[in-house]
Amino acid sequence: MVHIGVIGYGYWGPNLVRNFAETPGCKVIAVTDLRPERLSAVKQRYPYVKTTNDYRDLLTNKDLDAVAIATPCSTHFKIAMEALKAGKHVLLEKPLATTKEKASLLIKEADRRKRVLMVDHTFVYTGAVRRIKELIKSKELGDIYYYDAVRVNLGLFQHDVNVIWDLAVHDVSVIDYLLPMRPYAVSATGMSHVANQPENIAYLTLFFKNRLIAHIHVNWLAPVKVRRTLIGGSQKMIVYDDLEPSEKVKVYDKGINVKSDAKSIYKMLVSYRTGDIWVPQLDITEALRTEAAHFVNCIEKKKHPITDGESGLRVVQILEAATKSISCKGRPIKLTTMKIAK
Amino acid sequence: MVHIGVIGYGYWGPNLVRNFAETPGCKVIAVTDLRPERLSAVKQRYPYVKTTNDYRDLLTNKDLDAVAIATPCSTHFKIAMEALKAGKHVLLEKPLATTKEKASLLIKEADRRKRVLMVDHTFVYTGAVRRIKELIKSKELGDIYYYDAVRVNLGLFQHDVNVIWDLAVHDVSVIDYLLPMRPYAVSATGMSHVANQPENIAYLTLFFKNRLIAHIHVNWLAPVKVRRTLIGGSQKMIVYDDLEPSEKVKVYDKGINVKSDAKSIYKMLVSYRTGDIWVPQLDITEALRTEAAHFVNCIEKKKHPITDGESGLRVVQILEAATKSISCKGRPIKLTTMKIAK
Amino acid sequence: MVHIGVIGYGYWGPNLVRNFAETPGCKVIAVTDLRPERLSAVKQRYPYVKTTNDYRDLLTNKDLDAVAIATPCSTHFKIAMEALKAGKHVLLEKPLATTKEKASLLIKEADRRKRVLMVDHTFVYTGAVRRIKELIKSKELGDIYYYDAVRVNLGLFQHDVNVIWDLAVHDVSVIDYLLPMRPYAVSATGMSHVANQPENIAYLTLFFKNRLIAHIHVNWLAPVKVRRTLIGGSQKMIVYDDLEPSEKVKVYDKGINVKSDAKSIYKMLVSYRTGDIWVPQLDITEALRTEAAHFVNCIEKKKHPITDGESGLRVVQILEAATKSISCKGRPIKLTTMKIAK
Amino acid sequence: MVHIGVIGYGYWGPNLVRNFAETPGCKVIAVTDLRPERLSAVKQRYPYVKTTNDYRDLLTNKDLDAVAIATPCSTHFKIAMEALKAGKHVLLEKPLATTKEKASLLIKEADRRKRVLMVDHTFVYTGAVRRIKELIKSKELGDIYYYDAVRVNLGLFQHDVNVIWDLAVHDVSVIDYLLPMRPYAVSATGMSHVANQPENIAYLTLFFKNRLIAHIHVNWLAPVKVRRTLIGGSQKMIVYDDLEPSEKVKVYDKGINVKSDAKSIYKMLVSYRTGDIWVPQLDITEALRTEAAHFVNCIEKKKHPITDGESGLRVVQILEAATKSISCKGRPIKLTTMKIAK
Repeated sequence: MVHIGVIGYGYWGPNLVRNFAETPGCKVIAVTDLRPERLSAVKQRYPYVKTTNDYRDLLTNKDLDAVAIATPCSTHFKIAMEALKAGKHVLLEKPLATTKEKASLLIKEADRRKRVLMVDHTFVYTGAVRRIKELIKSKELGDIYYYDAVRVNLGLFQHDVNVIWDLAVHDVSVIDYLLPMRPYAVSATGMSHVANQPENIAYLTLFFKNRLIAHIHVNWLAPVKVRRTLIGGSQKMIVYDDLEPSEKVKVYDKGINVKSDAKSIYKMLVSYRTGDIWVPQLDITEALRTEAAHFVNCIEKKKHPITDGESGLRVVQILEAATKSISCKGRPIKLTTMKIAK
Repeated sequence: MVHIGVIGYGYWGPNLVRNFAETPGCKVIAVTDLRPERLSAVKQRYPYVKTTNDYRDLLTNKDLDAVAIATPCSTHFKIAMEALKAGKHVLLEKPLATTKEKASLLIKEADRRKRVLMVDHTFVYTGAVRRIKELIKSKELGDIYYYDAVRVNLGLFQHDVNVIWDLAVHDVSVIDYLLPMRPYAVSATGMSHVANQPENIAYLTLFFKNRLIAHIHVNWLAPVKVRRTLIGGSQKMIVYDDLEPSEKVKVYDKGINVKSDAKSIYKMLVSYRTGDIWVPQLDITEALRTEAAHFVNCIEKKKHPITDGESGLRVVQILEAATKSISCKGRPIKLTTMKIAK
Repeated sequence: MVHIGVIGYGYWGPNLVRNFAETPGCKVIAVTDLRPERLSAVKQRYPYVKTTNDYRDLLTNKDLDAVAIATPCSTHFKIAMEALKAGKHVLLEKPLATTKEKASLLIKEADRRKRVLMVDHTFVYTGAVRRIKELIKSKELGDIYYYDAVRVNLGLFQHDVNVIWDLAVHDVSVIDYLLPMRPYAVSATGMSHVANQPENIAYLTLFFKNRLIAHIHVNWLAPVKVRRTLIGGSQKMIVYDDLEPSEKVKVYDKGINVKSDAKSIYKMLVSYRTGDIWVPQLDITEALRTEAAHFVNCIEKKKHPITDGESGLRVVQILEAATKSISCKGRPIKLTTMKIAK
Repeated sequence: MVHIGVIGYGYWGPNLVRNFAETPGCKVIAVTDLRPERLSAVKQRYPYVKTTNDYRDLLTNKDLDAVAIATPCSTHFKIAMEALKAGKHVLLEKPLATTKEKASLLIKEADRRKRVLMVDHTFVYTGAVRRIKELIKSKELGDIYYYDAVRVNLGLFQHDVNVIWDLAVHDVSVIDYLLPMRPYAVSATGMSHVANQPENIAYLTLFFKNRLIAHIHVNWLAPVKVRRTLIGGSQKMIVYDDLEPSEKVKVYDKGINVKSDAKSIYKMLVSYRTGDIWVPQLDITEALRTEAAHFVNCIEKKKHPITDGESGLRVVQILEAATKSISCKGRPIKLTTMKIAK
């Protein structure tokens, strides 16, 4: 039985408590938040859970095996580091950290203490993304040509981070999970429309070997909500629309055939192929439920989670580089090769 | 009565002939194409029109006032220049030319001979784009923050030009018409997925003064057809979906209010506004019909067309810079200021 | 302060408890259900609420002013009647009763004891339906020509009632609220696709004076979920799509103009009108919240609720007649005129 | 080589001429229309075709093997009968006739003279409907439970026939082609919203043996265009949306399983099944092209067409009964069994 504490009971914390409370093999022991009214909310709904306004009470609690941290971005590093040093397994809200240096320190600390460090890249655990992963792994799409994601709406302006760290982080983590390669460079553009505020609209291009390219469009100031990804492969193509209630993933048997026939070199090299469309049924388990069970399982089996510290670090590195590229109006930024355990 | 000849009767030529044939104040006198079977097609449908396989027959025809040119891109400059030198008014398929030098030469020649030089930027003449122009001019949207266009489908691969010159040209010409400023730089990325072929997927960012940004996504290799543009303003926002049969332009009374209140500086500076949506009725006249009438009117009234040589040149300059930026993985390319007559 | 008890804590009961718990001016005192595990669920979430497995404990509780009943349909009459006789105000799940005789008895009992009797016709309290009511009342639509509702999905088969009593009840209650007249006859058809089970697909036509007609299509066995209503008026028309996340009500400035011009009698009497579309912003308060507040307000102010016993009776009468018409393959059934207080 | 004449060059006639002109094995010889300007239009486009304002010129023309008739509904019988008596094969606009007596006379005349009599039930020849036919025949859907069609828009008011004869005729003819049984009764309701004009909105229910039911909703006065059909089967279900540009037919692996397990009789007999969705690629040949080729083939091979006189008669019988039912507010009308050749 894994005993869990949750740090932060604002927007996301209640989802963490609810899901861990309903996950077999673990128990929510304590919740902390600075605001008394949030702790009252915990008490009313979960009378058996201990509450405190000092997160250090959780770190010194010997009964606790693990903590889930859902505090503001700027506090992630400090709290997560203290938790690891106190011997707790850690599930941390995305992003893992605000710089790759801090992300690396967390990874090292977790390794040294043999603790699970997991980043809450929620979309990786959706039925849709896991199904797409299977399709890509089974080579059903052929070679992947491009990945194009749009994630826009009239969203809450963040004041400490730009729209990349708030929204593109989702797509970058999904790309990290899905694609068979790591990007070697990023070019990004963006704009802030409010004085003294970070960018609220941004466009990222990720460059990979073998003609693979990825692009992400994020916007906090759009009139409509769009969450749509196109994935082009040499054999098949996917439209993944997260707002579709029941047909989120569509697989198109469409594409081009390229002939190297001698005669056609001077004419048309490309012919078109269009066939059936297929909409696979998806696992509709709540992503956070799957993720909570995975965290518990990794603690019990001493395994590396899918969204481990390394994946969190790779995502942070890309977001950092993209932010730098934006300030240079799209100048490409090289992504340094990192030693990656797996 | 303006007497018109059409050069090229392939994909677009029949639309030109049909529309000029039905435009009051002009008459289609002659059509030329290299292929006999295309000329037969002309004869069967328009028995009264002269046909020839040599376009120079049209240029030497004293009865002709103007020519419309719908030949392959690489021949535009040569034919248009000869036509202007022969004293004909010219309507030329987009793009105006393949380089800004050639575009400038055409403009100068037309100026010297006082002939109308018009580029066939068809989308500028749609009811949707003209309605959006009114909304922008009337300040209904407030200040324009961004312009975001997507134009993708499983389209015909071109072999002599990349997807920018084939598809993005439409959006760049609409942007040139709609937006109150000229861009000062462009960053673009893209990829070719067929060996020895030009890019089939591309992303362009245009930078303007006053926090305005524009982005264009074009793709010949998409599983679905999308023609959707978001326009964000400080007061209202627009979704323009060209594939919607009857609700192409939607105006959203949505946005943010930014307060500089002293107290809120440390809290939330941005509040959200969401109101009604309005779908204006549009003029559904075929764009090319409106355009044909405009060409005839400019000839008769000795006026500059909306999509004149200057606008064609500005579009070509952007496409050239974007193509260069793609080869540098997004490095921004400055757009030199041009002297513009109007 | 109105003290409320909730009878039945199955599918709908938790929504009633949650909404009354958050409605100012009232307090949830007690909840009853036959199943111990459901009472535990109440206790965990609302530790301060009394629980019992005997609903009569609520009726004899002097502290209680009112009860909300969310038990199976067949028990509605008995429990509601006992509650009224015990002097409680009653909010009753739809339908009010299974026959119009029972419905009438409840109305009389409530009148005699001066108690509020309200039926939970939830859709009447949605922002969408209330907005449409305003549009109809203000004559913005002109004369109402037709009301056409579709409510289908792969839904839970009920075993004691057919699809009309489960789904069409929503549309009939909305029609009762929205339309300015009462229907005088109903024709209905339907079919059961499971042996010994009630109809799972049905079509109702309601006939009104002045050329007004209403039609309802309900189906438990549809491949897709549809909740769409068309309302045609002489001036404007509405599309009300309850599944649209943010554009539920669209007002079309479309219709026909009919001329009685002498000359045109032998030609075309009808001309078409098509104009802008308008999507009004809606109140997005949860319908049940609005409804709970209305119930409390009616108790305090001794008012008749919008969905009072009379409206519940009118709905029951239509459902009874429709069920009879189905068994006669569409033969029209006359709706007897009822004395209606308001 | 089949020589064809076309009678009537209004709305539909040009489509007939164009398609027969491009169908191998036949030739359009002559076209007739009462209006000189329509004949000029023929001449300009097809200089080789003879034109006349007297349709009898076509019937006496020995060179003609067949005529296609696209005249107003009320003239169908007279012209078609004269054509058959003149020994011509006949393709006749839907509906075959305005009464089943007249339809029967045409069938007898065609039989006696061994001429092909074909009704232009265009939708039967679409790729979508032919694909659905295969799915039904192959038992992929299992037993058919219901067929539900909606065909509404702001359409042209007809003055001589109601909306059933104009729109529902399409769905009735598709039902006749697709479903494995004939209906035994019809109930219909409807309304006219313009004084002295026929019904502009109508609802038809067709009753079949074996729990099969069909319903058609047609409306000339709708704010939006809808062309959507749901087909429910015991194994799979179909959504056929004719307005979808590329995904017209979707096959849902959804439904219910009914268990007759003794224990569950008192509990839940029905369980739900939901699986993948599949969008088959369709033949996108223009329906009228397929139909024209079929007509020519039937003449050459002396075969009965798919949409022969008998199918036209069955459709007319249903439309007649439905019109009668409307005037009786839904009273069901029995459909008499007809002797059918095939």
